[in-house]
Amino acid sequence: MRHSYACPLRWSDMDAFGHVNNTVYLRYLEEARIDFLALAARVADPEAFTGGTVVARHEIDYLRQLVHRADPVTVELWVVKLTAASVTFAYEIKDATGGGGPYVRARTVVAPYNIKEGYPRRLSPAERSFLEGYFDDSHRG
Amino acid sequence: MRHSYACPLRWSDMDAFGHVNNTVYLRYLEEARIDFLALAARVADPEAFTGGTVVARHEIDYLRQLVHRADPVTVELWVVKLTAASVTFAYEIKDATGGGGPYVRARTVVAPYNIKEGYPRRLSPAERSFLEGYFDDSHRG
Amino acid sequence: MRHSYACPLRWSDMDAFGHVNNTVYLRYLEEARIDFLALAARVADPEAFTGGTVVARHEIDYLRQLVHRADPVTVELWVVKLTAASVTFAYEIKDATGGGGPYVRARTVVAPYNIKEGYPRRLSPAERSFLEGYFDDSHRG
Amino acid sequence: MRHSYACPLRWSDMDAFGHVNNTVYLRYLEEARIDFLALAARVADPEAFTGGTVVARHEIDYLRQLVHRADPVTVELWVVKLTAASVTFAYEIKDATGGGGPYVRARTVVAPYNIKEGYPRRLSPAERSFLEGYFDDSHRG
Repeated sequence: MRHSYACPLRWSDMDAFGHVNNTVYLRYLEEARIDFLALAARVADPEAFTGGTVVARHEIDYLRQLVHRADPVTVELWVVKLTAASVTFAYEIKDATGGGGPYVRARTVVAPYNIKEGYPRRLSPAERSFLEGYFDDSHRG
Repeated sequence: MRHSYACPLRWSDMDAFGHVNNTVYLRYLEEARIDFLALAARVADPEAFTGGTVVARHEIDYLRQLVHRADPVTVELWVVKLTAASVTFAYEIKDATGGGGPYVRARTVVAPYNIKEGYPRRLSPAERSFLEGYFDDSHRG
Repeated sequence: MRHSYACPLRWSDMDAFGHVNNTVYLRYLEEARIDFLALAARVADPEAFTGGTVVARHEIDYLRQLVHRADPVTVELWVVKLTAASVTFAYEIKDATGGGGPYVRARTVVAPYNIKEGYPRRLSPAERSFLEGYFDDSHRG
Repeated sequence: MRHSYACPLRWSDMDAFGHVNNTVYLRYLEEARIDFLALAARVADPEAFTGGTVVARHEIDYLRQLVHRADPVTVELWVVKLTAASVTFAYEIKDATGGGGPYVRARTVVAPYNIKEGYPRRLSPAERSFLEGYFDDSHRG
């Protein structure tokens, strides 16, 4: 199963070259992760991922350029790896129709973290169970 | 040889967790590349990289968290790979003193691009020669 | 008549104090103006405001603090002044329900501009006629 | 006396029109205020403005357009009004040489605030005394 997030663009996402700037796609991924971890996950378990997470690594490939428009882009997000204390997400950013192929493919390693106290922590059984529902390593993300 | 860029922080680089947000480090890398490609490279050849470049890929590892302060961070940048139509940069973001180890290690694949006409182009001999002066594949970036 | 724009928030709109940063509201106003000038106005006249506009002045009052949430805010926009070469917008940013009162009240003076050639220009008769439909100086914006 | 802050630009401060975006100047003002309130003020009193401040109002006039360059802009900041629980700053953003006139003139009403507990507070005698040193209402800001 993949999580799908409709991410609205802003005109200011474009840089002086008139395209969505490469750094801004990471904001779209951030929005999709927040939608996934702070909304979807908490339907399953109200305590899931409270207290924060940190990004340990990104890999991101830029495949097509994007210009501002009123229609949102679709961010698809799924899980490709789980360890005791991290989850690796894969994503594709594309048009809702799927036509034309993805703008971006990316992967992010996220670690659950106690932001207040400043230390990493393990995934809880409920978090792991939720994430396993989105596990899919058959596709290159 | 490495190119070194003193990158000032802004208070707004921090997110609601009170740390420099993971996406903002890519802005620091962008600033360092612009300093390198638009200033340093044009001392050697005034035509170098005019017309634009595009980012094809980023890899970025987050090693330490950073909080806003008046002192800039140092972005070190060097070249780890050259092809006919791309250059791969490696970087470390760290304190000027070098103490405490890097905050971030990253790599970016950049392609010279004719932004106006919308097509990629090859590196010119002058660009290649300039970039070769910063070649160093002995270090993991 | 007022133009109403549902503006989605992003988590990154919050600053290190955990509230939407004061500068970000101006991005919400920008999004509402683009929706109004580049979409709504061009239904009436496809040439309206092509070529660009510039902001000459903002006044903005911050009335209530806002924290990131999934629901968009509503930006209401209307016209309070028209001159030969400028339009003054008033806005309120509030919840869709209107409950709790506005987060922000603001005014912006916008001048039609030929961005390519770099000079201000007059409002066209079609632009003026479109803007007059949103004129309302009975409310403090 | 005016406080002067050298504010470095970023390439990403420009929008798709190729100029520094109108909202970004408020980031420059923010940086200047932080330099003034969190650094300069605390030389006089280590407790000054700890706990936070909030922006109650901005007025900003855009006089000249600005394009990214390596040289910082100068933000001049001074005090035009003091009440029991607020300070009004005036600013000019200009080139270090002062030539060509200001890019921006602006005013901001700032209220000392207890961010943690969520209430406004009065200026302390030490804060007021520090701010009075920068009082100047002879100039239109």
